[in-house]
This record gives sequence, structure tokens and C-alpha cells, in this order.
Amino acid sequence: MKWLMAKAIRLAQEGKPAPNPKVGAVIYKDGRIIGTGYHRKAGYPHAEVIAIRAGGSACSGATLITNLEPCCHYGRTPPCTDQIIQAGIKRVVIGMIDPNPLVTGKGVARLKEAGIGVEVGVEEEACERLNRGYIKRLETGLPYTIVKIASSLDGRIATLEGESRWITSHEARRYVHLLRSKVDAVVVGIGTVLSDDPRLTVRHLPGENPARIIVDPKLRIPDQASVLDGSAPTYILSQSSGKKQNGEVITLTDFHPESILRRIGELGFNEIMVEGGGRIFSSIIESNLFDELIIIYSGKIIGSGIPFARFKIASLEEALRVEIVEVRQIGPDLLLRGINVHRNHR
Amino acid sequence: MKWLMAKAIRLAQEGKPAPNPKVGAVIYKDGRIIGTGYHRKAGYPHAEVIAIRAGGSACSGATLITNLEPCCHYGRTPPCTDQIIQAGIKRVVIGMIDPNPLVTGKGVARLKEAGIGVEVGVEEEACERLNRGYIKRLETGLPYTIVKIASSLDGRIATLEGESRWITSHEARRYVHLLRSKVDAVVVGIGTVLSDDPRLTVRHLPGENPARIIVDPKLRIPDQASVLDGSAPTYILSQSSGKKQNGEVITLTDFHPESILRRIGELGFNEIMVEGGGRIFSSIIESNLFDELIIIYSGKIIGSGIPFARFKIASLEEALRVEIVEVRQIGPDLLLRGINVHRNHR
Repeated sequence: MKWLMAKAIRLAQEGKPAPNPKVGAVIYKDGRIIGTGYHRKAGYPHAEVIAIRAGGSACSGATLITNLEPCCHYGRTPPCTDQIIQAGIKRVVIGMIDPNPLVTGKGVARLKEAGIGVEVGVEEEACERLNRGYIKRLETGLPYTIVKIASSLDGRIATLEGESRWITSHEARRYVHLLRSKVDAVVVGIGTVLSDDPRLTVRHLPGENPARIIVDPKLRIPDQASVLDGSAPTYILSQSSGKKQNGEVITLTDFHPESILRRIGELGFNEIMVEGGGRIFSSIIESNLFDELIIIYSGKIIGSGIPFARFKIASLEEALRVEIVEVRQIGPDLLLRGINVHRNHR
Repeated sequence: MKWLMAKAIRLAQEGKPAPNPKVGAVIYKDGRIIGTGYHRKAGYPHAEVIAIRAGGSACSGATLITNLEPCCHYGRTPPCTDQIIQAGIKRVVIGMIDPNPLVTGKGVARLKEAGIGVEVGVEEEACERLNRGYIKRLETGLPYTIVKIASSLDGRIATLEGESRWITSHEARRYVHLLRSKVDAVVVGIGTVLSDDPRLTVRHLPGENPARIIVDPKLRIPDQASVLDGSAPTYILSQSSGKKQNGEVITLTDFHPESILRRIGELGFNEIMVEGGGRIFSSIIESNLFDELIIIYSGKIIGSGIPFARFKIASLEEALRVEIVEVRQIGPDLLLRGINVHRNHR
């Protein structure tokens, strides 16, 4: 069943269904896959339903493999459990129980009541990793937060004069676009918008644009900013209320990084990537609210310049720590990926 | 011949013969290696002579493979060319011509005069890499300079209070000891001696201690400093003259990093590693006098702290640049090796 679960996970990765979880489903019968599906977007049909449709009448007596417990409640779509039962599925293999209290364990119970054999926990870790954002948001109200920094070897994101463009290479920027295609939203501060005017879209490769979130307490964003070009949903977190074409102004009173992330969680984003600038990097790292750190180091040494971490610690004990899980060369640059080892426990 | 040259290079790497070049020699006859040798230390027999002795009378008609042009002058030992001729060697394969003006081309000419077939330039690049320190010192008077930094991910070598011990892991420290076993000398500033009292020796693995060089303008080094424990030759570069047990005081008036490196070159060290502290790192990087940068990043973020680069640049154009040639995980840490792309041209 492991390879079938791996296939369900790969299918699930094709979707970007936040606030919903990522789900893939495979229907298997007599040594053959007879149907597959994944949940593409919130409001679209669920993975199990698409797979059952593909399998048609052959689903009778088949096994359904899915990374997440099928839902048993009416949301924007009817319960999957009912459709599984109606299709005559004989056995359901589930990666993990849905942490959503509307579902937890109830989906499994509903299937068992109908006489369906249920197995839970196949490739559970991989299934949890797939939905790390969904799980974290349900548990804490906060999204899974990746901080992505383009830095010099000495930890600077810009010169003292604020010059930062092209610190890293074309290859690295392409990789950043790939990362963007995988998250639900990217977050930047207004300073970055004013100085760099980034688009924050997916270019150089196919992929869906993430939503764009601008942290802009005083609503300083200019109407002609590239993030207001309408190419992706855009939210402006601001103390002021107001209207912006192609941008929804979301009122927020407290700009502590936790409040910002909580508001982003409320908007339904499961996984986000913070792309700048220095002040946001520093405050999210200092308050230990990030889950993952991606640093792309260019082979430059800048000396005095704008650091990505500007907080003060009293002793080495208090240094923020990540577990380095990946290092590799990416074009002329160095990619480092680290996981926060004390996430939310500081 | 390539594999035999590779073997000569590996043999050469066993020696630490500064101010002399690293040389290995292999004698090959009828499909067999009949003798090998390498130059272990200045004043010790040369590689070719040791190999010829090992081959004995079988050397007659054999081929000698060596990474560097054999010497033809009387130094601390008699000329190798004469001994090659006397042994009846028929053919000599040479990696590279010796840049030492006492030898350059003359060794080859002497062998040819004696009717020996000579081939030059086999695996030349690898041979040049082997003796990069010797070549650089002959050409510029300066040693090949590796700057080795243990840093947090944000480019800090210590907290604001100067706490720096154990920034990196046991595995990383072991690797540093391996690096020490390969260079002729390690260099630190007096600040590092006073704050950390390092020994700068090779421990945790077998290997020869490098010489220790302390940059100490005002001769503040305490008699009980660990670097004065007599376990390796120790030099103190100082404006003051003086006497120290187990340490030779070398007078220097000008402490510009180039003057320091030039004096170290005069002492006969071909390859050195600079191990701290922040001021020396920063001045050598800023003045672009390093050849190679090794940064061992621990997965820590320190924020405000002591940076390894504190100079100011006016624009990104002026940033110091290295070509990243190696990245890998070393225990929990990240090792980065970079080559200075504008070495001595700034």
C-alpha cells in the first residue's frame, strides 16, 4: 500500500486548496489503479469524489487510498464518506486522521458502520509533512511559516544604502519562484514594496501565483505598486482602513509578528513564505515564530550593511537555533534549509 | 602516466617541507612501481633521491615520475638531477617546471643533456594546486592564505559580550584540526589568545602541528598562554622586541595585513590559515589578501554580535566575492569553501 499512498501524496501536492487540506486519492482493484483524483482548490470537488467518478462502476469492491481521513460533514461539498459508501468501496486506507474537529475519527467511524474495512496510519509521517500547514493552523491558528532570505555570506541583506537587488543569482531567483508556486501566500513589509517594488509572482516556470500579503501599518502602498497589478489576490494588513484597487485592506491594530501571523491564519492561508524586509525577518526570527528558514547565500561579503537579524541576545544560550536539513549549491549560490528546533516553545 | 603522477602527488601531500615545495616521486619499470619517495621536511632528503634509493640498481632503464622539475643546484642537499643521471634513469616525467629561478628549466636541460627523455606538463593543474603556496610565495612574497571562520548563520563570530566558544560542533572542530595538519602555520591575533587561550595544535586525529603565529603589536602575550606550551614552533609578530620562552619574537613595524603576510612569507611559510579574531578576519578580507575562505556555519542566529566583516563598502559592486566551490554538512554544521575571485587584484 505504501507506493499507492506515495502516489496519493504526489497527487495531493498538485493542489493548492487552502484553507482546506491537500488530499489525493487512488482507487485500486485487482492489481490496477482504476481512478485517481486530487483536491485542486477550495470549493472544487474533493479528491475521493474525483477518483470515484474516474473509477465508475468498477469501484464496487475496490480499495480507496487517501492521505487524509475522508470528510463526513457538509461543507462547500457533500460528505465524501457517503459517496465512498454508495460507490461500493470495500476497503479504505488512510494516511492520517483529519485534525479538524468536525471530522476527527468520525469519518472513519462512518465508514466502519457501513461495513467498510479501514486501515489508518500508512505513511503517516509523509502525510503529516504534506499537510504541515493545515495541521499547524488548526492547532495554533498560525500558518506554517517559511522565512526566505537572500543574504551575503556575512548575513547582510543589503548595503547600508539599501542596495539589495541581484545579491543572488538567476538560478536562485528561479528557485524562489518554485517556492512561491508551492505556498499559499507570500508576505513582505511595505519597506520592501517601496524600495524594490517586487511582483511576488511565479515566473520563469509554470505554477500558480500565491496570494500577496503586504504588512503596511500606515497604508503607504502606492496605487501603482506592482503587487497591485491584479495578477494574484492581494491583501494589505493596515491600521488604517481604506480601499485599493486589486488589493483588499485588512484592518489590524497590533503589529506584533504573532498578531500578523494569526490574522494571516484567519484569512485561511496554511503555508506562507516571508520574503522581506529586514525588520520583518528580524522580528519573526527573534519571536521564534518561523517554522523553516531558507537562506540563499551569494558568495559576497558586504561588511557593514543591513543584517537579517538585528535583535540582541544576552548569551549564546539564547541564540535562535535551526537544524540544518539541506545544503546545496544552486548556480553560484548556496542554499541552506533549516528547521526551527524550538518552534513556538520560546 | 596519469595515475603514476596522481600517486606522486598523493605521496607529496604527506610532507610539510616549507619553505620547500611538496614533491613526490615514483620509479616505474616494466609495468611495476619499483620505488617511491616524498620530501618530508626541509633539510630532509628529496623525493627523487629516496625513490632512487628504494629502486636500487633496478633504476637503470626505469622511468621517474615526479610532480616538480628536479633541482639542479646545491641547497641543503645535492642536486637531484645528478643522482637521477647516475642511477641510469632513462625517462623523466614531470608535472610542472619549478618556478624557483635557481631551477626553472635548468633541471630539465641538465637531464636532456645527459640523454634522458623528458616529458613536462602531465597533470599540470593538479601539480600546481599541490604547490599553490610555494608558487604564490615565490611569485608574490605572500603565503597562500586560508581564512577559516566559525560563524553563526548571520555572520557573527561571537555575541556582543565576546562569547564565542562552541559556536560550532565537535565534528567541525575535528575538521579544523585536519585543516591545521595540512598548513604550515596558523595565525591569530592577540585578542583571540587573551580571550580564548587556544592551543592551535592538531588533536582528535594524527597529524603534524603547524607553526603558530601570534599578531601581537604591543607584546601583551602572557607567559602562561597555551600557544607558548612548546608543542609547536611559535612566532610573535610585535612592534616591541622581547624574549618569550617557547616563542620567537619577530619585530614588525607596520601591521597592515599585507605587511604581516609578507613577513610570514619571509619566515618561509607557504600555506597559512588565519583563525581569528574579528579584526584580522575583517582586515584581511577587506584588503582582499586571502586566497580561500572556509566558513563553518552553525545553525545559530545571534543577531547583534561581533561580525567577521566590519568594513564599509559604498555599493554592491564593491562587495568582496568568492566562488563557492564546496558546500556540505559537517555534523550539524554547514561547511562552505570559497575561492577569492579577485585575489590580489583589488
